[in-house]
Amino acid sequence: MSNLKSQIRVAILGYGNIGRAAEEAINAAPDMELAGIFHHNDCLDCIDADVVLLCTPTREVQKFATVLAARGICTVDSFDIHGQIWNLRENLDAVCTANKSVSIISAGWDPGSDSMVRALLMAMAPKGITYTNFGPGRSMGHSVAAKAIQGVKNALSMTIPLGTGVHRRMVYIELEEGADFKTVEAAILADDYFAHDETHVIPVESVDALNNVAHGVNLVRSGVSGETHNQRFEFNMTINNPALTGQVMVSCARAAIRMKECGEWGAKTMIELRPIDLLPGTKESLIKALV
Amino acid sequence: MSNLKSQIRVAILGYGNIGRAAEEAINAAPDMELAGIFHHNDCLDCIDADVVLLCTPTREVQKFATVLAARGICTVDSFDIHGQIWNLRENLDAVCTANKSVSIISAGWDPGSDSMVRALLMAMAPKGITYTNFGPGRSMGHSVAAKAIQGVKNALSMTIPLGTGVHRRMVYIELEEGADFKTVEAAILADDYFAHDETHVIPVESVDALNNVAHGVNLVRSGVSGETHNQRFEFNMTINNPALTGQVMVSCARAAIRMKECGEWGAKTMIELRPIDLLPGTKESLIKALV
Repeated sequence: MSNLKSQIRVAILGYGNIGRAAEEAINAAPDMELAGIFHHNDCLDCIDADVVLLCTPTREVQKFATVLAARGICTVDSFDIHGQIWNLRENLDAVCTANKSVSIISAGWDPGSDSMVRALLMAMAPKGITYTNFGPGRSMGHSVAAKAIQGVKNALSMTIPLGTGVHRRMVYIELEEGADFKTVEAAILADDYFAHDETHVIPVESVDALNNVAHGVNLVRSGVSGETHNQRFEFNMTINNPALTGQVMVSCARAAIRMKECGEWGAKTMIELRPIDLLPGTKESLIKALV
Repeated sequence: MSNLKSQIRVAILGYGNIGRAAEEAINAAPDMELAGIFHHNDCLDCIDADVVLLCTPTREVQKFATVLAARGICTVDSFDIHGQIWNLRENLDAVCTANKSVSIISAGWDPGSDSMVRALLMAMAPKGITYTNFGPGRSMGHSVAAKAIQGVKNALSMTIPLGTGVHRRMVYIELEEGADFKTVEAAILADDYFAHDETHVIPVESVDALNNVAHGVNLVRSGVSGETHNQRFEFNMTINNPALTGQVMVSCARAAIRMKECGEWGAKTMIELRPIDLLPGTKESLIKALV
């Protein structure tokens, strides 16, 4: 890039699947440079960056975001516990506002870009029902829950969409030596993660041999615009999960810096972002190309 | 509503298909009241409203928006000449900023909500190609162009999507008494509106008998997130065209008022709006429901 001074300096905290994908997205961005990769037990005071992508486990997000926001450093996370998003936003908003920084929270694909689509569809047809159908794809939460069951050596839980937001769970397990399949199966089916969905437990020799980061969404809304019914909308995607999450976080890092520069401090979810702020380039070029 | 003082007072200028649909959307909105319906030859000084929806022909938008913005009144239009959107924004932005008002321009479904989807998909997969496939549905511009041909009494031009942004034009015409079909057909095929697309001209007894405001979009992107190719996205809708346009304008009227109250004056396209601002309700309720 010709003008390095205008580059956004983006650091990564946590270097798993999403951290690695985020690194690739930073390197591919014309207006960013990598300001370092840090591990979650590194000293946060060492981080010198405009914005830090929190690619750590979701439960560690608030702790790290709070420390960085207090230093005036923007953060982006993909916090994905739907029921706790508002609380996270409230807690971080106060720290960000006091320290003139911006935290963009729950910036992945769901919550994240799917949330923006849901909001837009509600604006287009305010009455109606939106169904978000996930998969086929691996559910990290359900895989971890299955692996925690006694007798399970390794597990992969696939989410299969059955429509209208109903999902089947296909749970592939490697048994511990001497474990009884029927006992393990019963324990999985009784677990709160699985008890409410149609669940199939399948013993396999190697869970690793099934591993695949492909995922998908089918998001549908039938609704009413004004007094006109039968307005139908559908959003589909089939994607590499960590690659999309990393990319969305990197695009949100750009929005965080733009908002910080405009004095729009605080914690924001993606439905509070302007789509144009996610993109590199001038307003004129983007409006001419996309509107 | 319990508190009438907090209602957004929305007026309609122009009362064709879109004006009527906008009226229904205003009446259905929990936070709005209709502040009057005005015809394009009424005196604009009589309009007393927080925001005016410009449901006039697209070429009259700038004139009306300029007068209203100068009085500090917000406007929303669905200006749809893609190549002139940036100029309209530039011209209105100066008037709005000087008079502390907000004009949301090109707020329909394309340009409009489709533009927001295109921007979001580019943020999710920055490299790649987006194709917007329109229809099947009536093209107003092409219908008017066909009707202007000598010997044509009435015309309906349907846009048929062939994929990758290529479209077929199905032009249904009622001939004037004594007009020669072959001559008329040749004139239509030679017209600049039709010369670049596969076009079929079909004589019918009654164009009115074919009329239908259904329309649709199939918007697809295959792109690259970071360094990961084959990220696939698709947005589909089948809708009543004026009903959706009117609804989107009404949702944007809400955003205009919110932005005006925050001092974010100027002219904006939809990719410059936060999705949350399009929706009624509190931030907390919307974030809990949609994110």
